[in-house]
Amino acid sequence: MKLHNDLILRAAKKKSVERIPIWIMRQAGRYLPEYRMVREKFSFLELCKTPELAAEVTVQPVNLIGLDAAIIFSDILVVPEAMGMKLTIDEGKGPIIHNPINDVSSIKQLKNFDPEIELKYVLDAIRLTKKELNNRVPLIGFSGAPWTLLTYMVEGKTSKNFTKVKSFIFNNRELAHHTLNLITDCVIDYLLAQIKSGVDLIQIFDSWAGVLSPKHFEEFSFHYLNRIVEEIKPKSDTPIILFAKGANHSIEKLAYTGCDVIGLDWTIDIKDAKEKIGDIVVIQGNLDPSVLYGSNDFIKSEVDTILNTFPDNKGLIFNLGHGIYPDVDPAKLKFLVDYIKESTSKKETRF
Amino acid sequence: MKLHNDLILRAAKKKSVERIPIWIMRQAGRYLPEYRMVREKFSFLELCKTPELAAEVTVQPVNLIGLDAAIIFSDILVVPEAMGMKLTIDEGKGPIIHNPINDVSSIKQLKNFDPEIELKYVLDAIRLTKKELNNRVPLIGFSGAPWTLLTYMVEGKTSKNFTKVKSFIFNNRELAHHTLNLITDCVIDYLLAQIKSGVDLIQIFDSWAGVLSPKHFEEFSFHYLNRIVEEIKPKSDTPIILFAKGANHSIEKLAYTGCDVIGLDWTIDIKDAKEKIGDIVVIQGNLDPSVLYGSNDFIKSEVDTILNTFPDNKGLIFNLGHGIYPDVDPAKLKFLVDYIKESTSKKETRF
Repeated sequence: MKLHNDLILRAAKKKSVERIPIWIMRQAGRYLPEYRMVREKFSFLELCKTPELAAEVTVQPVNLIGLDAAIIFSDILVVPEAMGMKLTIDEGKGPIIHNPINDVSSIKQLKNFDPEIELKYVLDAIRLTKKELNNRVPLIGFSGAPWTLLTYMVEGKTSKNFTKVKSFIFNNRELAHHTLNLITDCVIDYLLAQIKSGVDLIQIFDSWAGVLSPKHFEEFSFHYLNRIVEEIKPKSDTPIILFAKGANHSIEKLAYTGCDVIGLDWTIDIKDAKEKIGDIVVIQGNLDPSVLYGSNDFIKSEVDTILNTFPDNKGLIFNLGHGIYPDVDPAKLKFLVDYIKESTSKKETRF
Repeated sequence: MKLHNDLILRAAKKKSVERIPIWIMRQAGRYLPEYRMVREKFSFLELCKTPELAAEVTVQPVNLIGLDAAIIFSDILVVPEAMGMKLTIDEGKGPIIHNPINDVSSIKQLKNFDPEIELKYVLDAIRLTKKELNNRVPLIGFSGAPWTLLTYMVEGKTSKNFTKVKSFIFNNRELAHHTLNLITDCVIDYLLAQIKSGVDLIQIFDSWAGVLSPKHFEEFSFHYLNRIVEEIKPKSDTPIILFAKGANHSIEKLAYTGCDVIGLDWTIDIKDAKEKIGDIVVIQGNLDPSVLYGSNDFIKSEVDTILNTFPDNKGLIFNLGHGIYPDVDPAKLKFLVDYIKESTSKKETRF
């Protein structure tokens, strides 16, 4: 069945589009009152693990805000959990892994897993969401990057200085690479299972790429991102988006992995990024999420700076440079989405 | 009186040096048992405000570790306090400003101040430290950058997403610039007073530069850093170090302010930085502070990557890319300092 709105898919493949497409990170989430109503009755992990609920909140922003894609409601930490780690997500405290990696035996206990068994609830949620979307817009699947997953698996929680995971990789280089390879195997299987279950694009989130020096990023993160792209590409044509937050020093390298789209945070000038990688890949991003606290006029002028870099509507998927903040007024997001739709459809007004 | 060790001063002025000099950020601090012993008896702010104590902990790392400069023990938030804000620094909780900027009247209450009265305790600490150092090594003075100070003054504490201060600058642009100008006036007066009191170099810390997009950094931070350099330079020859953490997108701009040294965090390849700005300014940095959790051999190899970029010992002041972490073993820092002294003194072994 053909999608009614396949703008993002065409944009990701550098085909021509009638207007610039937009989706936003964390678009199914706390900024929406409709989401918070569901969350009042169920915990975060209950939502992730109940396909009907996950599908419900996944389609909410498509229905309410009119975005050009849905992204499956889930969490990057379901992979470590499926590998055998004990995960809880406490209100206000964030995720906690209760048996973090701290010696060789804790690494030996990590297991590869069958996504169709261990993460069946995600794949069921994908299948159900595809039905509910009824080909209106594409569905995006995702995984955390191996490096980002490792940080949680060693630190046990969101970290400030990442001292434990850095001690681990600096003092146990071989063991670190062994573990990263193991995680990478799981991520590849998981992403392929998502594709098989019906997602139309995949994004890999390397949320903590930016805490590594360029040299250590190459060794402990990039190497594995590259492996993921290299192993998935021969098996599937599904567009791959790499988002390595804070790794603007390495966007050329990332672009040459063979991925389709590079997600950018807001700390890089999108014009510079376009000059560096715009001929190789499509760019996704990169509005500072805080801009949504500004007036409509301010939002317009900030958005125009990005749009004007792509005057022919080619090579850009609009997004924020990071997840939307929970206290943003949904009306502001709606304004942003409508403005992008309007202003890039009427190309003649932009010249 | 001439300094016995003026390596850092000569390095900052691009003169030739016998070996590469080193100091480290937060070198007077929690990683030292001798500092913690003093802190057991006095609070952080008592230390800052008692010149004898501030001088004592300032010289500790010079005596114990053998660094090439001292940096006056103080805090960037003494400036907002002197401007009229109520500051406490609670154990474990970090700094809190109890009357943050939240409307026009709270800005009207901010006052310019005479550093010789309001911050006399810092200047006294500088004068006392100079005596105690007895011309062994230079003394570094410092201030927070206007943007970084504004973030604390609006957020009231260390922030995660900087939503309040960004709402402020995006929605009240003129008022934001008015406030930033006011802070800049204070910072300039304060730095000039430190120079008059005897400091040999000054560093401006823009710790939160990295939360702004390049465009907003230029408008809300760079503009004021530039003003500081422009107004101090005609009045003093004291070397100025600009450290804008996370603003690697703008190091060329920063280098052309007329400052002497650019401090770099560890998320930029120092070779790239040298190519971009090495002909204009001296570079300070940029070892990942976590490297000090590694073995001595690992530390050596990471340090060599930096040192080998400056084979003639010219153009570099060695430092970490950010403050030293409190749980680092002081013996590791001593190893780092000794290794840099030894390996850059014997230049013939490096070719």
